[in-house]
Amino acid sequence: MINKLIANIKKTGAPIVVGLDPMLNYIPKQIQENAYKEFGETLEGAAEAIWQFNKGIVDATYDLIPAVKPQIAMYEQFGLPGLAAYKRTIDYCKEKNLVVIGDIKRGDIGSTSAAYATAHLGKIQIGSKTYAPFDEDFATVNPYLGTDGVKPFVDVCKEEKKGIFVLVKTSNPSSGEFQDRIAEGRPVYEWVGEKVAEWGADFMGDGYSYVGAVVGATYPEMGKVLRELMPKTFILVPGYGAQGGKGADLVHFFNKDGLGAIVNSSRGIIAAYKQEKYAEFGEANYADASRQAVKDMVQDISEALENR
Amino acid sequence: MINKLIANIKKTGAPIVVGLDPMLNYIPKQIQENAYKEFGETLEGAAEAIWQFNKGIVDATYDLIPAVKPQIAMYEQFGLPGLAAYKRTIDYCKEKNLVVIGDIKRGDIGSTSAAYATAHLGKIQIGSKTYAPFDEDFATVNPYLGTDGVKPFVDVCKEEKKGIFVLVKTSNPSSGEFQDRIAEGRPVYEWVGEKVAEWGADFMGDGYSYVGAVVGATYPEMGKVLRELMPKTFILVPGYGAQGGKGADLVHFFNKDGLGAIVNSSRGIIAAYKQEKYAEFGEANYADASRQAVKDMVQDISEALENR
Repeated sequence: MINKLIANIKKTGAPIVVGLDPMLNYIPKQIQENAYKEFGETLEGAAEAIWQFNKGIVDATYDLIPAVKPQIAMYEQFGLPGLAAYKRTIDYCKEKNLVVIGDIKRGDIGSTSAAYATAHLGKIQIGSKTYAPFDEDFATVNPYLGTDGVKPFVDVCKEEKKGIFVLVKTSNPSSGEFQDRIAEGRPVYEWVGEKVAEWGADFMGDGYSYVGAVVGATYPEMGKVLRELMPKTFILVPGYGAQGGKGADLVHFFNKDGLGAIVNSSRGIIAAYKQEKYAEFGEANYADASRQAVKDMVQDISEALENR
Repeated sequence: MINKLIANIKKTGAPIVVGLDPMLNYIPKQIQENAYKEFGETLEGAAEAIWQFNKGIVDATYDLIPAVKPQIAMYEQFGLPGLAAYKRTIDYCKEKNLVVIGDIKRGDIGSTSAAYATAHLGKIQIGSKTYAPFDEDFATVNPYLGTDGVKPFVDVCKEEKKGIFVLVKTSNPSSGEFQDRIAEGRPVYEWVGEKVAEWGADFMGDGYSYVGAVVGATYPEMGKVLRELMPKTFILVPGYGAQGGKGADLVHFFNKDGLGAIVNSSRGIIAAYKQEKYAEFGEANYADASRQAVKDMVQDISEALENR
């Protein structure tokens, strides 16, 4: 699946991923009203609105992008109907040949991590039948519990030829509280980065490992160090756009081959129509605004990479 | 809710929580067969088997215990039907006046953590209506992302009078890889423990904070240090029984008032009938075996506390 991700990036020339993290207040009133008319002001109604909103964005952008990253929390907050919309979004994006990175940030120990891995990347046996419950292509994983917590994901990925992105240095302001603590001469995030490289060393695609890392665009200097520490690790980079990261901040996340990183934008793309820059599109044409925002993001990053 | 947890512990005299972490191979064949007969060998069939299994254990133990801790991963691996069984289990346990600790180990940043908090502890507004999606009483939270990741849970808890348990030192063998790194003179888990005490300082019930911690029974010496570092923090202690923790290991997790800790056992209780010790009950009477295992666990811990 890492090979497919890279093939998709090469095909589109866009090392980006669109974060499908819908909030109700991003969704045009008309879409919400139609959904509530059919399902009432219920969890089902909200889930339908989310799904229609997502579909509009995917239809308007799928030819320009290699991958999407739905954030499961945004669906989980609408309970079971929300999670049904998550699954529907995954399936639809896969139909459109997009790589789906489930941003689930799960992590536990032993058999429990194995259960999460099964849920999102693997298959479960029930009697004589087998099912793939959520069936994303990649998932994000939290490393706080150590190898016990991550290994079960890697094991399932090896069976399914799927991958993970392990949190190393997150994009948020307080990520340094624990991740930046200097432990035995180097910050905790470097210890984690080193483990990520180790976990992925014997599980390689063509050039990059199936075990990737998450490093925030908001910390470019740390990105540079981590890029060198984990040369074969694909880096998923959140924090571009709404969180403050710019194209120029991103160049050190990429290797000299122009690969090695994929940059996420969520709000900046899916709620583009709310920005002054894209206001001319209007609420009804929100998906066209998203398409333009994708083009602008690709251009920003391409220019930064050319000028480095 | 921390007050209710303590009241339930005092009423039952049992500082324990039963981990409702069903695996298909724990579930008696007859229950599975009945479920498959009705729903086929499907995710729905497996979910029905889990629910019937849980109900049997809850019915056989609810008068002896203060709380249950369903591990969501074990349900998530059965997709949407599995998560419906999770929700059904929560609702049933609450009917039985048990405190429900959702072992979800979620953690993200800002609005995403807020969405998880809404999903599991809070309420979501849809038009003019309000819904509580999963509605556990407590949830476990991963601290790797720092205050940004935890604060949104605390905010929702303040509104709902609910609580969280933050992972500090986990029970698994490799938890030390990052948690034990000595950073600026002390291990990372102590830095996390100190933050947990800080996050909970202004959110107190009668004697204990709504912000608790997770510290594994398998690390009793660290538990002793953390107990002193976080005197007002209730500690959820996994790792008893199947993972190797014994009653005598647990005494330092408790304060002198005999409170301050609640010890989890999952496999040791719910799959008790598979142990030689309880084999006489037989598969059909699995729930009675669980009841006896609860009694034995309470006695083991009580004796250890009396003899300290």
